[in-house]
Amino acid sequence: MDQVVDLNVGGVFYTTAASTLVQAQPSLLADRFSGRLDPLPKDSKGRYFIDRDGVLFRYVLDFLRDGKLSLPESFREKERLRLEAAYYRLDGLTERLREQRPGYITVGYRGTFAFGRDGLSDVNFRKIPRILICGRVALCRDVFGDSLNESRDPDHGDTDRYTARFFLKHTSIEQAFDMLQDQGFYMAGSCGSGTAGGTSAAELKPGVDSEECRWNHYNEFVFVRDS
Amino acid sequence: MDQVVDLNVGGVFYTTAASTLVQAQPSLLADRFSGRLDPLPKDSKGRYFIDRDGVLFRYVLDFLRDGKLSLPESFREKERLRLEAAYYRLDGLTERLREQRPGYITVGYRGTFAFGRDGLSDVNFRKIPRILICGRVALCRDVFGDSLNESRDPDHGDTDRYTARFFLKHTSIEQAFDMLQDQGFYMAGSCGSGTAGGTSAAELKPGVDSEECRWNHYNEFVFVRDS
Amino acid sequence: MDQVVDLNVGGVFYTTAASTLVQAQPSLLADRFSGRLDPLPKDSKGRYFIDRDGVLFRYVLDFLRDGKLSLPESFREKERLRLEAAYYRLDGLTERLREQRPGYITVGYRGTFAFGRDGLSDVNFRKIPRILICGRVALCRDVFGDSLNESRDPDHGDTDRYTARFFLKHTSIEQAFDMLQDQGFYMAGSCGSGTAGGTSAAELKPGVDSEECRWNHYNEFVFVRDS
Amino acid sequence: MDQVVDLNVGGVFYTTAASTLVQAQPSLLADRFSGRLDPLPKDSKGRYFIDRDGVLFRYVLDFLRDGKLSLPESFREKERLRLEAAYYRLDGLTERLREQRPGYITVGYRGTFAFGRDGLSDVNFRKIPRILICGRVALCRDVFGDSLNESRDPDHGDTDRYTARFFLKHTSIEQAFDMLQDQGFYMAGSCGSGTAGGTSAAELKPGVDSEECRWNHYNEFVFVRDS
Amino acid sequence: MDQVVDLNVGGVFYTTAASTLVQAQPSLLADRFSGRLDPLPKDSKGRYFIDRDGVLFRYVLDFLRDGKLSLPESFREKERLRLEAAYYRLDGLTERLREQRPGYITVGYRGTFAFGRDGLSDVNFRKIPRILICGRVALCRDVFGDSLNESRDPDHGDTDRYTARFFLKHTSIEQAFDMLQDQGFYMAGSCGSGTAGGTSAAELKPGVDSEECRWNHYNEFVFVRDS
Repeated sequence: MDQVVDLNVGGVFYTTAASTLVQAQPSLLADRFSGRLDPLPKDSKGRYFIDRDGVLFRYVLDFLRDGKLSLPESFREKERLRLEAAYYRLDGLTERLREQRPGYITVGYRGTFAFGRDGLSDVNFRKIPRILICGRVALCRDVFGDSLNESRDPDHGDTDRYTARFFLKHTSIEQAFDMLQDQGFYMAGSCGSGTAGGTSAAELKPGVDSEECRWNHYNEFVFVRDS
Repeated sequence: MDQVVDLNVGGVFYTTAASTLVQAQPSLLADRFSGRLDPLPKDSKGRYFIDRDGVLFRYVLDFLRDGKLSLPESFREKERLRLEAAYYRLDGLTERLREQRPGYITVGYRGTFAFGRDGLSDVNFRKIPRILICGRVALCRDVFGDSLNESRDPDHGDTDRYTARFFLKHTSIEQAFDMLQDQGFYMAGSCGSGTAGGTSAAELKPGVDSEECRWNHYNEFVFVRDS
Repeated sequence: MDQVVDLNVGGVFYTTAASTLVQAQPSLLADRFSGRLDPLPKDSKGRYFIDRDGVLFRYVLDFLRDGKLSLPESFREKERLRLEAAYYRLDGLTERLREQRPGYITVGYRGTFAFGRDGLSDVNFRKIPRILICGRVALCRDVFGDSLNESRDPDHGDTDRYTARFFLKHTSIEQAFDMLQDQGFYMAGSCGSGTAGGTSAAELKPGVDSEECRWNHYNEFVFVRDS
Repeated sequence: MDQVVDLNVGGVFYTTAASTLVQAQPSLLADRFSGRLDPLPKDSKGRYFIDRDGVLFRYVLDFLRDGKLSLPESFREKERLRLEAAYYRLDGLTERLREQRPGYITVGYRGTFAFGRDGLSDVNFRKIPRILICGRVALCRDVFGDSLNESRDPDHGDTDRYTARFFLKHTSIEQAFDMLQDQGFYMAGSCGSGTAGGTSAAELKPGVDSEECRWNHYNEFVFVRDS
Repeated sequence: MDQVVDLNVGGVFYTTAASTLVQAQPSLLADRFSGRLDPLPKDSKGRYFIDRDGVLFRYVLDFLRDGKLSLPESFREKERLRLEAAYYRLDGLTERLREQRPGYITVGYRGTFAFGRDGLSDVNFRKIPRILICGRVALCRDVFGDSLNESRDPDHGDTDRYTARFFLKHTSIEQAFDMLQDQGFYMAGSCGSGTAGGTSAAELKPGVDSEECRWNHYNEFVFVRDS
């Protein structure tokens, strides 16, 4: 029968199974509960005592139970949790936290609206020829993977460099947003700007509608993943 | 008489009625408390012990009490709650969580102001001919249902595709916002841009007021539902 | 002497006076503690036991103590609290929660700056001729009451309709913001846009300064009250 | 020797020194613990019992310990804390809370960039001739004090009026932001807009560079202090 | 053997090792537990009692354990923690908190897009010649260090002054964002604006593409570190 273990982690009490605590090998808790190291001291009520932050142990224990990391969205204590992972010598947890590198990614588009011959009566949907992606190369790849067109900024082996020359293979801005959300990013800011002048028919490039030209704008969305 | 049951869920204590725990059939807790499976182990104080996260059990228990899911707004641990629903084998809870698909929806409008003959003295209210909706088809339908005009992007059976060709049957932007709020979305960003040039009377399309043309702008509001 | 009562609400412990619990008549707790219904069951420590969420009971108890509702700003569990109010049959609490209807209100203004003859040396303050209010009629009235000029969209008896034809009787945008804050709204987004062309002296309407015209812009502030 | 006192405030337990509780004279707790009023009732464990919200008592106790008010940033329960201050008859706390009046302040600037003769090669820094301050007079003074130039809207004795005619004596927008932060405000929204046309050399006012004119923009930052 | 110590800090219970409490010398707790001062009083259960806020002691204890400060992101009680550091006479903690000076920094860029001869077919990436940094000098240096070009605003020995004349040695806006994030800043606002007119070929400065000129915009991102 699996033993029920009471823990006092810095004053916060947890209860778990002994088998959970020895799950990750090697690690501080596995060593302590398997006899490889001295057992933990006990508090005045007989609970095993650990002299660490009690609140963050919630996620340490979750990791031991499921072997995976699932944090609240916008979790604010990742940096603190890294310290705990190191203390408990949980390499798997450290590794999972390392994957969630913090940083900013900007998604921008120069758009307008599709005006046909019947410009006034039609709906004139949004028209986005290209979605630009800017940020640290490694981070952009984490998020967009195969959707990323890197042809204009080919890999020189340095994934820590910053680029403003990536764009997406698709042109759906909400799909880009969803991919960012999926990787733990959220929108931190957004700004738009229109363009200046240049709409007289004489100055228009061939094939460009003057109305389309008037509505040209650049919208920039800044996403961040917390550290 | 209904039995009062003390639970120790990973160190957090809950009290509930035995009848509540067997509410959802079949499920882990119903099996444990109805005798179909071995009963739960007990902790040192005689409380039934469950080796799972204690905080999230609050919502699991709420679901068992009311048979429905009501989460705090901007609830940050939906992904984590999905893991709990799976552990406790609560298919109803899993299903309710699946309905709340995360993702982004953009609401945009090309607007101006209504100028009449007495343009200077009048109030000149906002004029929005069309509200554009962009995002994943299934998500847009979740939110806007019958208000959605899909005529320009008819269904091809693929609700996972992204569209920028939906618009609303009404033109009240705040009603669109309220519908999004109602489905658990909140505003993540907003940006506006004006237009360029093109206001000389000679270039105006027939029936368009030059003042109206000058005030043309595109405002884009980005909404998100957390994962 | 007023009796001190220990409660176990779903595992969270509260202490209160018996007189507080029978405050609201009729209600579940008044019935339970006045003998009209069977008394509540007790937990293993002799505390009265209620099989409901323990955290939200904090606000239920506050309401019983003071007879009024005062929630934290940006309180995230109003919808959940409505379920509790219904369970405890606290009509007064249900009513107070109903008053705090969720929804979006947009405040916009078409502004510029006041340029005098000595345009370059002067401070050129903000000039806002009119503050536009858009949203559901009932919600707009909740917030702005007598400050609202409804003359352009007179009441047709349907307060659930949406309007973009209300404006304020004053022209101080910060006063509008303060009134929104006072009713539990906060700013969810904001966007601005300038205007296009049309500044040649020949095209100016009489009495309009060309510099003033150049600085014309439309700023739109979106407010929301959580559900 | 100072007595250690256990309190049960609505189910939340606090421990403090008796001398702390009689700190503020007169007040409910000083009266109760000095014998001027009947002592507090006790709960089943012998703790002194107070039938009020247990969570907010944290800040009441802090105030008694230090005689000053230091709340978390973006503290969401100020309105609720006011009710507690009144209940405990802590006039000093009530006064401190009154000083933190809620409300919105807008900071705006009409800016451009400094272009010299060598416009293309230079850095062209931001150029802000004036920072405009709009909002309720009393609130603006709370924040900006002596930095405020009120010459264009001299005091008529009514500090509850709203003004859009204040500006700062300095022109550093970040210094304005820091002063707002210092008084508990945070940025709630921001929007920008460019200007229209008017750049032909013939129309330029004397001494104004055409490039400088093209880059004219109005940026508006809205700050709020929570209620 | 290291002694396990139970603490009652204002009603919140902590457990730690005696060796942790005497870690920082000199300090209130080291004095109390080493015999230099009278020992702490005890509560009714024999726990050592401290008449201070119980919640914030979590971070005090963390500091004693690790000798370093690691706070949750967007930690809202820094000002309150400063009071605790002073009470416990933890100079190291006070010093670490002083390093995290609050304040605003603005990052702005005047950008456009790179149009080549084949303007229509190319991707036309973002083009940012210079990233401007504005704010208090000391704060800007904290964040950007060696990346900061201060040549246009050389040091006059006053690091408390505000500047709008710093810019970065690199032109990657996301790298600037990441450096800000690394130092505990987050984005509080963002706004953009386009430019006005001036695109006729005749008015263009030599070497400037007219399309590039049309897309000129100024985007401004405001960052803040909480106090």
